[in-house]
Amino acid sequence: MRVLYHLPLHPGCRKIRLLLHEKKLEFELKAEQVWQRREGFLRLNPSGEVPVLVERDGVVIAETPVLAEYLEEAYPETGFLGDTALDRAETRRLAWWFDWKFHQEVTANLVDEKIFKRFMKAGQPDSQAIRAGHANIRYHLDYIAWLCDRRTWLAGDTFSLADIAAAAQLSAVDYLGDVAWDPVPGAKDWYARVKSRPSMRGILTDSIAGLAPPPHYADLDF
Amino acid sequence: MRVLYHLPLHPGCRKIRLLLHEKKLEFELKAEQVWQRREGFLRLNPSGEVPVLVERDGVVIAETPVLAEYLEEAYPETGFLGDTALDRAETRRLAWWFDWKFHQEVTANLVDEKIFKRFMKAGQPDSQAIRAGHANIRYHLDYIAWLCDRRTWLAGDTFSLADIAAAAQLSAVDYLGDVAWDPVPGAKDWYARVKSRPSMRGILTDSIAGLAPPPHYADLDF
Repeated sequence: MRVLYHLPLHPGCRKIRLLLHEKKLEFELKAEQVWQRREGFLRLNPSGEVPVLVERDGVVIAETPVLAEYLEEAYPETGFLGDTALDRAETRRLAWWFDWKFHQEVTANLVDEKIFKRFMKAGQPDSQAIRAGHANIRYHLDYIAWLCDRRTWLAGDTFSLADIAAAAQLSAVDYLGDVAWDPVPGAKDWYARVKSRPSMRGILTDSIAGLAPPPHYADLDF
Repeated sequence: MRVLYHLPLHPGCRKIRLLLHEKKLEFELKAEQVWQRREGFLRLNPSGEVPVLVERDGVVIAETPVLAEYLEEAYPETGFLGDTALDRAETRRLAWWFDWKFHQEVTANLVDEKIFKRFMKAGQPDSQAIRAGHANIRYHLDYIAWLCDRRTWLAGDTFSLADIAAAAQLSAVDYLGDVAWDPVPGAKDWYARVKSRPSMRGILTDSIAGLAPPPHYADLDF
């Protein structure tokens, strides 16, 4: 069986889980406490980061952006990047926007501060970072609403890696109850459509010991 | 004419300059002081980052990883990723290693602290960061030597995007004279081979006002 080493609230891992599901590729999840720097895991990926995928034949692929491109190339039957070089550039631009900009401005300030710091015993959450995360999220929701005003999905007419990247970040922040959806109906409508996809089921039933998600987290009609 | 908005010591920009040269695609460089957040530039790339490429027909492509994949897809005559999905994953893994891990552990601690902070008037360089950058660089050079002991180039038998990504980072740090090449002959030999490529000429003649590079910077026999 294909194995994905992951962490439940890690947005990169969520992105690859969603992509594997959307491509109908079966896999087993194994949680890896990366901060323990387990030797067997470092042999799989010397950078020590999740996600890491081990294929049925033992082939190992690591790092979120590498894995996304690999899955697109190795399993091209259903593609999530688009057809032309330009469509694909637009999908990748938006995926990068969420993987990088949203992550740095929002997810790192909220999920890393509140959750990963605790597991890594790296001190108390920084209240200034948390305030910044809350302030920054709004303009990203506005951007999603702006895009969906012009397109069916974030990068165009079809559900793509851009939607997957955005959902991976936002679902992690939403687990903490830190997304104010109501003031931005366009973004809320987009996320309702994302949530109703079968690929989201695993993400929406994630549960972290000692930290239950808010009731709306898994609610499709939130 | 194709235009690339860039900053001279920005490793992402150097990566795209190298790739454009290797693909024999002509372009004109325009320096963009991103910290001024010029309105016309923000219209090209709302994230406000370089590199941004404007094609002859006006098409705009932004962000380093997006641009690298775009150039590979739009100009496939000479490819720098490899042939099979697995070869390409290995090239991308190493490119990511330098784009991300080397950048975070070395380039950000040295180039960002010493150069970009000055231009952005963001305070004095942090001496602790600079010490960390100097300490971290060694194991990356050892990794390059280890790879070149087993392969002709970093990702395999041919010069690839992995070499380009590594050269983009290392050349920026080398401009500051912060790379101790002599203790790691395997890495030095690799960089000598990289430096002798015509695509490196532009990078090696870069010059920043008020900050000359050390004499060995452009020397092919350093």
